[in-house]
Amino acid sequence: MGLSMEKSLNHPLAVTPSLARIAAPVACVDIGGTKVAVSMADARGIRGRVTEATIKQGTREALGEQVLALIERSCAQAGLAPESLSAIGVSSCGPFVLNQGLIELAAPNICGGLAGAARGLPNDWSSVPLEAPLRKAFNNVRIANDCVAALEAERRWGALQGFDHCAYVTWSTGIGVGLCVDGRVLRGKHGNAGHAGHMFVSDNNDALCGCGNIGDLEALVAGNSMARRFSGQGYADAAALLSAAQSGEATAVGIVDELCRVMGRGLYNLVVTLDLQRISLGGSVFWNNRGYLLPRLQAEIDGRLPALTAGVELVAAGLKDKVGDYAALALIEP
Amino acid sequence: MGLSMEKSLNHPLAVTPSLARIAAPVACVDIGGTKVAVSMADARGIRGRVTEATIKQGTREALGEQVLALIERSCAQAGLAPESLSAIGVSSCGPFVLNQGLIELAAPNICGGLAGAARGLPNDWSSVPLEAPLRKAFNNVRIANDCVAALEAERRWGALQGFDHCAYVTWSTGIGVGLCVDGRVLRGKHGNAGHAGHMFVSDNNDALCGCGNIGDLEALVAGNSMARRFSGQGYADAAALLSAAQSGEATAVGIVDELCRVMGRGLYNLVVTLDLQRISLGGSVFWNNRGYLLPRLQAEIDGRLPALTAGVELVAAGLKDKVGDYAALALIEP
Repeated sequence: MGLSMEKSLNHPLAVTPSLARIAAPVACVDIGGTKVAVSMADARGIRGRVTEATIKQGTREALGEQVLALIERSCAQAGLAPESLSAIGVSSCGPFVLNQGLIELAAPNICGGLAGAARGLPNDWSSVPLEAPLRKAFNNVRIANDCVAALEAERRWGALQGFDHCAYVTWSTGIGVGLCVDGRVLRGKHGNAGHAGHMFVSDNNDALCGCGNIGDLEALVAGNSMARRFSGQGYADAAALLSAAQSGEATAVGIVDELCRVMGRGLYNLVVTLDLQRISLGGSVFWNNRGYLLPRLQAEIDGRLPALTAGVELVAAGLKDKVGDYAALALIEP
Repeated sequence: MGLSMEKSLNHPLAVTPSLARIAAPVACVDIGGTKVAVSMADARGIRGRVTEATIKQGTREALGEQVLALIERSCAQAGLAPESLSAIGVSSCGPFVLNQGLIELAAPNICGGLAGAARGLPNDWSSVPLEAPLRKAFNNVRIANDCVAALEAERRWGALQGFDHCAYVTWSTGIGVGLCVDGRVLRGKHGNAGHAGHMFVSDNNDALCGCGNIGDLEALVAGNSMARRFSGQGYADAAALLSAAQSGEATAVGIVDELCRVMGRGLYNLVVTLDLQRISLGGSVFWNNRGYLLPRLQAEIDGRLPALTAGVELVAAGLKDKVGDYAALALIEP
């Protein structure tokens, strides 16, 4: 796998997605556990990018209001009138729940009511409205799980072009997954297929997930869990821990090896459950340390159950650190 | 869940699958890690059932020869000429590998070469031919993973009718899974989707799987692993262990509780990965102890990550202990 991994790390963004077919401007909204980003896209390209820390205080309506305010700011920055927008594409962390048929977010890294006070989020929300406030302001709104949207983007423009059995996995504030089998993106009963970040792969009970689970994959390895788990050992956050590991500091190397063992098991589980060909990886934790992490993750797959894993490749996202921008666009681009 | 579980345990086989549309007789072949069963089906029903212990010694051709001999015996018993068979449906444990485009079995509970001598199977096969010998004898042969075939049968005639997001799971000699999302049965790159029995859900390294994995789900809880893991504690096999647990013997209760914790995690992982609505369970270990096991497995799902698990039901197979017979039929019934 050494050679192809080298290749996959360095592959160029082969084709810059053509936006020429976008007649009227559209808004691309990316809601994560740490930040919300909004950009405008039209035939001239993607521009007017504004971001803010994801709001986690105030009323349950705060997040919807934040998204609408950011759309307005992004419009202003791009020199567009909000009335000129033909569609709003929203790529958001999940899971989603429906309230009177409209999507609300029950996201573990936003809603403090899911795991209770022990998790330290400054609210007791069990879900927050998203689709309702957006539909009040705009006619054409499409919301999808961020990793499902990113998977669509990677299949259209990135590292998953031509692969009918594949996944996109983000290793970021949380762990998210988008899945494609037999050429079809999986949705599930409420559009929540891909919440494999909340599966159990280890007996380690040392970490509380924002969803209330103890010791699931996200609780153990997600970016936001690293600070909680390892700050006592002198690593303030994921960046500090990964940086120490990359410089060869023995304790950090040991911790990151174990994180890769756990994350690698999650990826292996996806491969054997769905008979996948390729997994594309993104997200800030992965992207900023991809050269260090990728071979350690691949090692957790290679050699196990060859009938399923032979030839299976982990690769860095073809859309690079822009995968989030293109994810929302993939929902609305004609 | 108490009420609906009671209901699901006792639901009748609502509709006996109508075989009236079968014009010419077909053979139904069920290949498991412990036994091979062959029946004939035509408009008059399913009959001529013959079974043998799955052959694991001799040449690599032994299993194919066994299946052909059993088809002949089943024909004789049903009063049919082998030449009159219009199709052969084969539901087999996997995974499958392709040799010159034809399916061979690389099944951990048949092929001793996958895990090596430590696993104790009396051969060093890494795969055995199946499609080639059958196609030599018959024109119309359809082979599918046993749990994928059973899933099709449960969706057509059993407990998964009307469910678009569901799984069939067998807890038997091994652990097998068939998966359906968005109304479509998942296949994967080589038709091996559903090998979730080989996922990791625990750090217990105490058991070697037939696939070579140490401590995967099948290694820890499958029927054939129970004898290897617990005979030292006086439980000769799965039946002895489960019987002792059901009679309240404390050590056995503790062991089975832990097996259910591990198996329940596997089922929960499927639910959150694929946003399923319902899982139907079969297989000898489960079926013979379903009243005892079902609530213990359901307890591993209820209450976790409600956005994904609320309302998710585990049920006993609607086709009861006949699910294997109907599985092969589902592959060829018009």
